[in-house]
Amino acid sequence: MTSTTTHTKDLTPIEQLEKLDQSLSALGFSEALIFWDSATLAPKNAVNGRSETLVHLSEFYYNTLVNEHIHQVLIDLEATKNDLNDLEKSKLQFFREEYDKVACVPVDEYAAFKGLQALSSDAWEEAKEKNDFSIFEPYLQKVIDFQRKYIEYRNKGGHPYDTLLQDYERDLTVEITDQFFDRLRAVIVPLVQKIKDSGVTVLSPFEGVSYDVKNQKQLSDLLLEKLGFNKDSGIIAESVHPFTMNITKDDVRITTHYYEDNILSSLYSTIHECGHALYEQDIDVALGFSRLATGTTMGIHESQSRIYENNVGRSRVFWETYFPLLKNLFPDQLGDATPEICYKACNYVRPTLIRIEADELTYALHIMIRYELEKQIFEGKLNAKDLPSAWNELYQNYLGITPDSDAKGVLQDVHWSEGLFGYFPSYALGSAYAAQFEVAMNKDFDVNKAITDDQLILIKNWLADKIHKYGSTKTPEEILLIATGEPFNPKYFTDYLLKKYSDLYNLG
Amino acid sequence: MTSTTTHTKDLTPIEQLEKLDQSLSALGFSEALIFWDSATLAPKNAVNGRSETLVHLSEFYYNTLVNEHIHQVLIDLEATKNDLNDLEKSKLQFFREEYDKVACVPVDEYAAFKGLQALSSDAWEEAKEKNDFSIFEPYLQKVIDFQRKYIEYRNKGGHPYDTLLQDYERDLTVEITDQFFDRLRAVIVPLVQKIKDSGVTVLSPFEGVSYDVKNQKQLSDLLLEKLGFNKDSGIIAESVHPFTMNITKDDVRITTHYYEDNILSSLYSTIHECGHALYEQDIDVALGFSRLATGTTMGIHESQSRIYENNVGRSRVFWETYFPLLKNLFPDQLGDATPEICYKACNYVRPTLIRIEADELTYALHIMIRYELEKQIFEGKLNAKDLPSAWNELYQNYLGITPDSDAKGVLQDVHWSEGLFGYFPSYALGSAYAAQFEVAMNKDFDVNKAITDDQLILIKNWLADKIHKYGSTKTPEEILLIATGEPFNPKYFTDYLLKKYSDLYNLG
Repeated sequence: MTSTTTHTKDLTPIEQLEKLDQSLSALGFSEALIFWDSATLAPKNAVNGRSETLVHLSEFYYNTLVNEHIHQVLIDLEATKNDLNDLEKSKLQFFREEYDKVACVPVDEYAAFKGLQALSSDAWEEAKEKNDFSIFEPYLQKVIDFQRKYIEYRNKGGHPYDTLLQDYERDLTVEITDQFFDRLRAVIVPLVQKIKDSGVTVLSPFEGVSYDVKNQKQLSDLLLEKLGFNKDSGIIAESVHPFTMNITKDDVRITTHYYEDNILSSLYSTIHECGHALYEQDIDVALGFSRLATGTTMGIHESQSRIYENNVGRSRVFWETYFPLLKNLFPDQLGDATPEICYKACNYVRPTLIRIEADELTYALHIMIRYELEKQIFEGKLNAKDLPSAWNELYQNYLGITPDSDAKGVLQDVHWSEGLFGYFPSYALGSAYAAQFEVAMNKDFDVNKAITDDQLILIKNWLADKIHKYGSTKTPEEILLIATGEPFNPKYFTDYLLKKYSDLYNLG
Repeated sequence: MTSTTTHTKDLTPIEQLEKLDQSLSALGFSEALIFWDSATLAPKNAVNGRSETLVHLSEFYYNTLVNEHIHQVLIDLEATKNDLNDLEKSKLQFFREEYDKVACVPVDEYAAFKGLQALSSDAWEEAKEKNDFSIFEPYLQKVIDFQRKYIEYRNKGGHPYDTLLQDYERDLTVEITDQFFDRLRAVIVPLVQKIKDSGVTVLSPFEGVSYDVKNQKQLSDLLLEKLGFNKDSGIIAESVHPFTMNITKDDVRITTHYYEDNILSSLYSTIHECGHALYEQDIDVALGFSRLATGTTMGIHESQSRIYENNVGRSRVFWETYFPLLKNLFPDQLGDATPEICYKACNYVRPTLIRIEADELTYALHIMIRYELEKQIFEGKLNAKDLPSAWNELYQNYLGITPDSDAKGVLQDVHWSEGLFGYFPSYALGSAYAAQFEVAMNKDFDVNKAITDDQLILIKNWLADKIHKYGSTKTPEEILLIATGEPFNPKYFTDYLLKKYSDLYNLG
């Protein structure tokens, strides 16, 4: 349960690496709890002490990781790498990468960026609320400037944006992402057009009808139970934007948001975040209190939320199986509905302005827009001030619609305010990984039958065994090989989309 | 809002002290949030990562404070003390004391104790729940052993228990405390006997009647508003044992506990914790993000909760003024009651087993029992295994009753499990300070009239100006002089008790 601390000088190099891991994990625990708290509970004025605290914690983090002593420990271990076991090797690689990533930035700039993030998030929130991009613009420009400097510090060669992409998905490049998105676009754009041409409209039992929040909460709880969420190792709360915060594998917190006029929002947020949570909760306990006891990359993480949200939750069998449960909670609202109507309603394809409310098919287009903008920012072609108009232009190009306000446009996502450039593509990658995982899973057991039998736990068990348990000790490539027997292949995703939407809209 | 970090070598000694203050404040912020979270929200299994984290944070704390560099900074500043302004002098004194307190303990023992605290609290909780002292005993003995060792490390001379007392109330000694308690005992014991002899019983409208929790919550909110609690700089939540957690002066969190069958519990918990919270919220903003931006000692802190709970909240005018508010929320339950009945009911004197449910008069006896036990522990006369029977014996001596279970006896308080020996006497001191403050306040304005006029805010303003704003920059002695014009005088408290209870029970 508790570690005993020892004087550093008495430790072997591998013990020193373990101690580094634990110290950084303690700081990570604190930071995670602070973020959770700020998004769910903290009073308004708490921001002052919070931004101070985050600056100083990041300084502790920097100074604990980046110093001559740790530098030497890494060199010593790399020289005797063959003596290490697999977990030790993974740790060595993890902290070597972390060291190189952090050490290239001067400590004062590193810590100051933490302060900037807190202030920038605040400014973004206010700007969004007031629909006034100018409030956010100066902060955003500073965040961009820092990231540009960071790319120079890292000096990895290649496309400057590669450095940022690789912070979220190991080994990802602009070249790979361009090819991936070209391939998606070639399938999705004509498919959306055909659906539009089909003239099919969907009468949704979820629109224009009020679903009381108390019963929505009960539904969330029921779903979490069926999905296998461990309530002794996690909690669910509410926040404006749903998210998952993994404090440790034994303390994984998710949020959802209940709208009376949009039950699908809380339903799919709960399922999505639960997918993230199961990944964390099922990490092998042998990894211990470690920076590696968390999901390996954002792309793989997102595959776990999306396989539950889309492949499971937006499937026909899901609605056939769980419609009675919903009808029981909402007999008046769903009196005339059928599972098939619900299935169609939750997969209704329409160009929309808000990413997180988009259907599964057009969702990837929202990601491509952000990817294009980020690429141009780090090619030096766009600055903060250019983003609102560039945003609107791309929405017109990709989706044929233009936001009537920045709040519904360039200000909709929190990511840029926190400097999370390079993050968005992992959402689309996650969907593609999920499709590949589903095909592999079906070779081991009939996934649709598991859903029909109300045995969602079989899905969790498979994912735990093939993916979750490894935490960060495997790369995405390794995970894909272990779980599916082959490297990443986006064709599984495009096939999945073509099959699902051709069937849904009778495109023949 | 956010600090910029600078290379330590470029800083002047006073700037280095400021930086130390901020770094330790960031760790304090994290630790406070972790404790808050663990008592209100965290899932069961979170304890694993939490105890690890607390160990490592305490190691950061230790290493940041205790090193050659800081040692030299303190010496340099002490040599040029006359050049410092008042706030800087206070900081120097504060960190010199903190340095001496921490530096005497080896770092590994210091950090290991943090881990022990988390495990010991867990064991205590289980022991209390199962009414099985043996679960807690080995942990308690370890905690006692650590404290005994700590006293040796500190090596301050005098009574060994003095060292612990002074962790909570600067300059307190066994000699002073003995005198104080002798004086209290001489008044309270005969007074309790007279009340018993009077044969007066009180028909309480608060016993055997159910008060619904929803309306109790509304009452809490109304009271917080009237007391002046700033909801932008604090929140209220629920926990098993009510407490206040000051994360910063802008983020002060209190808890209460609602029992359907005991409305007085939530009512007085809310008022009590709000008293603590107002102290923190009203600290001068000029103190900034600092370890000194908190109440000066536990005794003074407790005076602020108790002046609200007892001097204000258990007064006749309080009930005369706010009875209609309660009756409006609970018309059925309070239909036959009057303000005078409520006043008598909330001051009903009876020997009881549980400290936190005791009336104001017998409360001090509960404290004296704990004080006696702690004194004997650190005189080497008692160990963990001896405490249940010693506890029961003292309850028989002081209150004429014996607990029928350890859960209602020696296991009732959390303090010992966390190593908070020396803390209890500050509760009684707080009541005595409160009486002295009330007399002084009445020289400036009529406190009863302020309550009658529903102007509780006048009380808050007075306390803020005389006590709160100074944070930890003044000693209790200085605070008493500023606020009351004289040193601590327990006669104010005994006079207050004699007057109040003679009147209540017509003791003539």
